[in-house]
Amino acid sequence: MPYFDAASAAPLHPVARQALLAALDEGWADPARLYREGRRARLLLDAARESAAEAVGCRPDELVFTPSGTASVHAAIAGALSGRRRVGRHLVVSAVEHSSVLHAAAAHEAAGGTSAEVPVDRSGAVDPAAYAGALRADTALACLQSANHEVGTEQPVAEVAARCADAGVPLLVDAAQSLGWGPTPDGWSLLTGSAHKWGGPAGVGLLAVRKGVRFSPQGPAGERESGRAPGFENLPAIVAAAASLRAVRAEAAAESARLRALVDRMRATVGRVVPDVEVVGDPERRLPHLVTFSCLYVDGETLMDELDRRGFSVSSGSSCTSSTLTPSHVLKAMGVLSEGNVRVSLPAGTAEADVDRFLEALPGVVASVRERLGAPASASPSPAPAASLVVDALGRRCPVPVIELAKVIGEVAVGATVTVLADDEAARLDIPAWCEMRGQEYVGEEPADRGRAYVVRRLD
Amino acid sequence: MPYFDAASAAPLHPVARQALLAALDEGWADPARLYREGRRARLLLDAARESAAEAVGCRPDELVFTPSGTASVHAAIAGALSGRRRVGRHLVVSAVEHSSVLHAAAAHEAAGGTSAEVPVDRSGAVDPAAYAGALRADTALACLQSANHEVGTEQPVAEVAARCADAGVPLLVDAAQSLGWGPTPDGWSLLTGSAHKWGGPAGVGLLAVRKGVRFSPQGPAGERESGRAPGFENLPAIVAAAASLRAVRAEAAAESARLRALVDRMRATVGRVVPDVEVVGDPERRLPHLVTFSCLYVDGETLMDELDRRGFSVSSGSSCTSSTLTPSHVLKAMGVLSEGNVRVSLPAGTAEADVDRFLEALPGVVASVRERLGAPASASPSPAPAASLVVDALGRRCPVPVIELAKVIGEVAVGATVTVLADDEAARLDIPAWCEMRGQEYVGEEPADRGRAYVVRRLD
Repeated sequence: MPYFDAASAAPLHPVARQALLAALDEGWADPARLYREGRRARLLLDAARESAAEAVGCRPDELVFTPSGTASVHAAIAGALSGRRRVGRHLVVSAVEHSSVLHAAAAHEAAGGTSAEVPVDRSGAVDPAAYAGALRADTALACLQSANHEVGTEQPVAEVAARCADAGVPLLVDAAQSLGWGPTPDGWSLLTGSAHKWGGPAGVGLLAVRKGVRFSPQGPAGERESGRAPGFENLPAIVAAAASLRAVRAEAAAESARLRALVDRMRATVGRVVPDVEVVGDPERRLPHLVTFSCLYVDGETLMDELDRRGFSVSSGSSCTSSTLTPSHVLKAMGVLSEGNVRVSLPAGTAEADVDRFLEALPGVVASVRERLGAPASASPSPAPAASLVVDALGRRCPVPVIELAKVIGEVAVGATVTVLADDEAARLDIPAWCEMRGQEYVGEEPADRGRAYVVRRLD
Repeated sequence: MPYFDAASAAPLHPVARQALLAALDEGWADPARLYREGRRARLLLDAARESAAEAVGCRPDELVFTPSGTASVHAAIAGALSGRRRVGRHLVVSAVEHSSVLHAAAAHEAAGGTSAEVPVDRSGAVDPAAYAGALRADTALACLQSANHEVGTEQPVAEVAARCADAGVPLLVDAAQSLGWGPTPDGWSLLTGSAHKWGGPAGVGLLAVRKGVRFSPQGPAGERESGRAPGFENLPAIVAAAASLRAVRAEAAAESARLRALVDRMRATVGRVVPDVEVVGDPERRLPHLVTFSCLYVDGETLMDELDRRGFSVSSGSSCTSSTLTPSHVLKAMGVLSEGNVRVSLPAGTAEADVDRFLEALPGVVASVRERLGAPASASPSPAPAASLVVDALGRRCPVPVIELAKVIGEVAVGATVTVLADDEAARLDIPAWCEMRGQEYVGEEPADRGRAYVVRRLD
């Protein structure tokens, strides 16, 4: 049963399992104690730190272990902002950071700080010059992910790091998605990671702070992990995290080339065999194992359900899933279609045959969902054209507003408009994205009695 | 090799190990996902929550899992204080709480709040009436441990809870030390616990908040664990924590009776076979598995080292260990001797023979350390008495100031004084404690050019 959601959580690497088992026996005691069980635990902790630091590319005394990637990000942002409080209280992030970064930014604003989001292009990448433009004299910290967790696009970390260095602003790089695949480009001041993303166990995050970076841990004091991560060390998991990072890195070059080729095949094939699909993210500067696409006239939840019934586990950034009512902030920032969104992220070791099976199954799954929703055929015949039309999709959720638009666009004359009344949040993103995909003109949106009116002009 | 420091970390219970292994295979995926691996993880998480909630004595929706007992305490205090911010910003804690509570109280004060420490008696327990006296109209939260982690004394939780209820103040009970032994007395509003204290894995804390208690989680928002514990759930460890809590509870009645008898024997024997020893903590209202005593004229580090060389792993609240320069805040609050302090906490399953071996080894170990330090024999002969004496112990660390005092007390006349000049922090605690133990009068302390002058009057 192929599991294609490694970007959420990778299955445990065999080395992680083995190390965890060994450390359950050897590393359960308190490493702060002086008796033999404590000394043994301390040795394991020190060795894990050295190993992880080497993989991260820092000194052991620059690295601490936290309970999660999220905990690392929260501690990093709070500590760096406080350490540079005298400089100012301005925080810069990209618009497509992980929610842990954006939530920390929101908390910072709620506490009286300010923050700016650097926009991304349609591929999901920031522009280094635009990023530099957001840095101010009172900017205490800048944050940029190494690669995006939803679409796989790599960020220009080295270029942004250079701009930050010029401005004297420390850069926090959230390397959660990339750390298993290789070292992070140089120039970061703080770095965070999460073990369960690379095949390590849950319960371990990494937080590296370069010597010389002003850092003042927030929250109640703690004696452990240099005062940067309070609470008893989760030592067996830390040992397993460090061992598995080393193991996946040893396999990374070969495995990333193999998965990169599989993903290239997926990117090409999905666009060919599924009509009205948008494959998103940078096709070149990207994570090796991840591809995201969105399918017109399909709702994300049904699509995931159907793929799950056929044995494929994927995730979705669509709004129309039971866990959320708004589309992914990443797709929104990129301005790409969010309906029928699917993220496929291949765990290391994914069999080629499973990818082939997925590509075989996908067109039928999408077609059946479309049929059920009454989506228009790809090229609908044009009856006697009307001047302009208004479509009422109020109270209907994604992907219905776009389906209704697509059904009638052929009924208006070229140059005439279709106005879609909708109150679903996703329509604001998906109607312009549909226009872009289908070569129609998106005129704009207007307030309406209920919801919003989205105006589209037929061009062909 | 007997490990006698269960109060720091208990060895992993076999059930925890077994459950952890199973959950590594079944519970590595994201429980927030809708595909089968996610649904399976969600089922495991829900089952663990139900099982743990039953053991805690609360509803499943009142309980969340955090990364550690410390994380639970920090989240509990910050959330409860913020939830009752309108009432006021006053926090009440006992003087012998775990450092995670005291650190959170210090952070609260640093942020402009106020807090009060309720003192304890010589056994380590608070007086419910004194506790009630500390509650004010603007008290937002009160904290009391179920039992003390250093001396084992049980706190009058039910009585204090009743006083708090009368005053309308929510009570947080830190049940870290007792949760494995049985349910917490009723009346708490918030409760915290830590899995590795009961034989569960590291990396799991419990936080229960009763329905109706005002609670506002602090820090950046999170979607997981009802917004009360951000970061990816450490599911295998959570499953192991819940399973092992149920398992240790099933064994608790029989095992606690057995260990209680062993500890009774230790309490009686230590006082008999080691001269100049103070066994501390309540002899009756106490944890079943824990005993603490302090030995005059011995330094904690050498004592721990010597016991470790003989295969016994214990901890110490003495100041004279390499990890600290101040005596334990618990011993300080109790006003008992801190030098030569040893805490023995027996893990479940401790063999009676190991306890016997410890009791056989202890007198020789203490005697050899005393001999090396030149400690006075228990009854030193009295030469021609001097009127009064001043002993200069400046720059000498615990236990030397007390040793020097004991050496000369017999040289002054009954009614005359010995003044000890000392700058070691422990002297302030240990000289009065020595007087109490030896039936001499502690007159008081005075400022001196360097350090302090401690005045002792010979009574016999």
